[in-house]
Amino acid sequence: MSRTLIKDLKAEVGKSVTIKGWVDVRRNQGKMIFFDFRDRTGKVQGVVLPQSAAMAVAQDVGLEYAVEIVGNVNARPEKNVNAKVQNGDIELEVTALTVLGKSAPLPFDMSVDGYNLDLVTELDHRALTLRHPRLQAIFKVQEVIIDSFREFMKSQDFFEFQAPSIVPATAEGGAEVFQVQYFAKKAFLSQSPQLYKQIVMTAFERVFSVNKIFRAEPSATTRHLTEVVSLDAEMGFIDSWTDVRDMSEATVRYVLAQVGEKCRAELEFLGATLPVMLEKTPTFSLKEAFQKLGEPEDKDLSPEQERALCEIVQKETGSDFVYVWGYPTKKRPFYVYPHDAEPEINEGMDLLCRGVEWLSGGRRINDYEQLMKHVAEWQMDPKKIEMFLEAFRYGVPPEGGFAFGAERMTMQILGLKNIREATMFPRDMNRIDLPLADA
Amino acid sequence: MSRTLIKDLKAEVGKSVTIKGWVDVRRNQGKMIFFDFRDRTGKVQGVVLPQSAAMAVAQDVGLEYAVEIVGNVNARPEKNVNAKVQNGDIELEVTALTVLGKSAPLPFDMSVDGYNLDLVTELDHRALTLRHPRLQAIFKVQEVIIDSFREFMKSQDFFEFQAPSIVPATAEGGAEVFQVQYFAKKAFLSQSPQLYKQIVMTAFERVFSVNKIFRAEPSATTRHLTEVVSLDAEMGFIDSWTDVRDMSEATVRYVLAQVGEKCRAELEFLGATLPVMLEKTPTFSLKEAFQKLGEPEDKDLSPEQERALCEIVQKETGSDFVYVWGYPTKKRPFYVYPHDAEPEINEGMDLLCRGVEWLSGGRRINDYEQLMKHVAEWQMDPKKIEMFLEAFRYGVPPEGGFAFGAERMTMQILGLKNIREATMFPRDMNRIDLPLADA
Repeated sequence: MSRTLIKDLKAEVGKSVTIKGWVDVRRNQGKMIFFDFRDRTGKVQGVVLPQSAAMAVAQDVGLEYAVEIVGNVNARPEKNVNAKVQNGDIELEVTALTVLGKSAPLPFDMSVDGYNLDLVTELDHRALTLRHPRLQAIFKVQEVIIDSFREFMKSQDFFEFQAPSIVPATAEGGAEVFQVQYFAKKAFLSQSPQLYKQIVMTAFERVFSVNKIFRAEPSATTRHLTEVVSLDAEMGFIDSWTDVRDMSEATVRYVLAQVGEKCRAELEFLGATLPVMLEKTPTFSLKEAFQKLGEPEDKDLSPEQERALCEIVQKETGSDFVYVWGYPTKKRPFYVYPHDAEPEINEGMDLLCRGVEWLSGGRRINDYEQLMKHVAEWQMDPKKIEMFLEAFRYGVPPEGGFAFGAERMTMQILGLKNIREATMFPRDMNRIDLPLADA
Repeated sequence: MSRTLIKDLKAEVGKSVTIKGWVDVRRNQGKMIFFDFRDRTGKVQGVVLPQSAAMAVAQDVGLEYAVEIVGNVNARPEKNVNAKVQNGDIELEVTALTVLGKSAPLPFDMSVDGYNLDLVTELDHRALTLRHPRLQAIFKVQEVIIDSFREFMKSQDFFEFQAPSIVPATAEGGAEVFQVQYFAKKAFLSQSPQLYKQIVMTAFERVFSVNKIFRAEPSATTRHLTEVVSLDAEMGFIDSWTDVRDMSEATVRYVLAQVGEKCRAELEFLGATLPVMLEKTPTFSLKEAFQKLGEPEDKDLSPEQERALCEIVQKETGSDFVYVWGYPTKKRPFYVYPHDAEPEINEGMDLLCRGVEWLSGGRRINDYEQLMKHVAEWQMDPKKIEMFLEAFRYGVPPEGGFAFGAERMTMQILGLKNIREATMFPRDMNRIDLPLADA
């Protein structure tokens, strides 16, 4: 008999069906055994009656066994209907039970409500804890975040390319880069697809990528990992950096809307509420931001100032989001575009939400001579960015782009306390899957 | 005036519009200058008449300049209509021309027909050659291959996860793995998401990933790179390895159909024809394959034998595809499922097309005790695959999966001679973007 998915059982009341899945809950109740069975589409309650041919097998079947069940789909009597759960109005009367994969006894409580692990234990047992609905909900939300980024980019004519992970040299940031033994030579792991997306933009005009980036963060904070998924976009023929701001705003708006629509159950289960984005997100230059804070101007906002600014904006406008732009030119990478009217500040921007940075981007320099001037002033080695510089020799329009991290956005949307909760296989200086042994 | 995309110009005949794009072609013709302008949506011919206010600027504007053009969209007289090209029935009469980005003179002919570079030069100038329609067509096809893999997986209830790149140990293959200096310790770059996709399958039942894999191939052949995009799938609750074969066949069928539908122009431009996939792809055990070849049995097919088998099958059935399964158990990785009736052969499979392997996969061992027996027989260190093994302690159903490389499939579908042509930024032992300097 072909398999019926658990989500489709309601249409089979009165019939005998075969389902396949895992044992999610098991309750001995007198002479009967009750089970909740789980497959990728949901859960259903099953009962093995005393006279069932399945009883002998059922007695040995424990939690997380993978099983095949033949049974009759019965409507529950009115008094037993539970309207709050999936399939709460039906029950599977088990007539045959086959073990497809045995399970060892679970090392801790994996029930929906009984699950209560510290993060270290959860990570040490990722292979098992991934089965818990809390983790499944988190990674479902993450899948929707990444998908909806891609969907929106495509709807706006952006071309997806595959940014490389192994890079020849490190134009930016020296210390926090991983080195790879590349045959007899040295190579590095990419810290950002920045220069590649700019190159591809010069050919495809609007481009995006979903790719890994790597940072040798020598500290194990709640916000930093060594390997994350970066969602990157770059667009040519802009009129102003505000075109980039608007595109990034529309992207985040779309992502939030999709998460709201497709992950309603997950958000509820995780107790998360989506942040409020207004029709037009409040936007301040760094100077204006300090004025708003009533504090002296500085080169950047501190984490405390970011939090305070978000709070003020939220109170004044109801917006959970705020853009800050116009950072000191010399404090940012060589490719960021200096503001025409006031070249000491640039047209880079950050999008803050609920006190932390969600996204950053801005306009880039497109003129080759201006770019080469910056290369010299920033004391970069042009040999190390030769391919990037070549792209800009051949007619590049005004352009800009933005990027954000999939794990960080998952963490922020869901209000998680540690980015490791939003990462299926987190890597940091002390852990790759499992804690690293001392060298 | 807001920008009109070149693909939308036909609807603007008789009106004045602004377009933005690159100079694709330039022809001085007496006192007039003709241009082809190009944006992400296509091309259009423009003309600067002798009396045009744009003439002074137009005289300095060369190939690949990024420009903004204001002009009148005119219908061409009947005799000048070229039905074979986009916008062949209209012409843009340029009234204003603004340079957005100057271009240096091109180092070689980038015209559609005049482009004729050897591969090394093409790669050395990837930042420029990416603008050529041949390369744009190749990477458009690749984008559709990856997208349609993802689309089909989602339509079949597969969950997308992000497989890690940095891995703690190398359970399989020692020599061809890249080592990363990981703080004071050692880590490696993933050669395959195999064990991770199996782990995630035990929680999500059906999973897929689109991710980079890395091989330290110490040779620079036409088929091998050090970094490629792997398209991976894994599914639980199968009845037989043939469920995996069928899913992989349906996936390839869908990808081919999408490429055929969405990339008609690109296939024609590149002179490529899609391979023929029958309703049911011919499938042989390795033993049967050798019988078909009339050759003595061996442990694997040689490249010549793969070619010969494909030719025979093509002649006999019209199918460009053929599955081969049932390889010697001991010659394959520890996790491959041994055939129940004949355990010396396993239920791994390869899909060949036009003489080469496109995809491989098969059924895996799901029973923990059988897995541990293989771990011992294959002399693997269980500590190095601890997380993987933990997943299999807790109820895993019969399962299997498959994988294929995005670049290789792009190469094969398009009949390209070298995998570097199908890779935007190819990496091999001698090149990362540009040729590597000697150490």
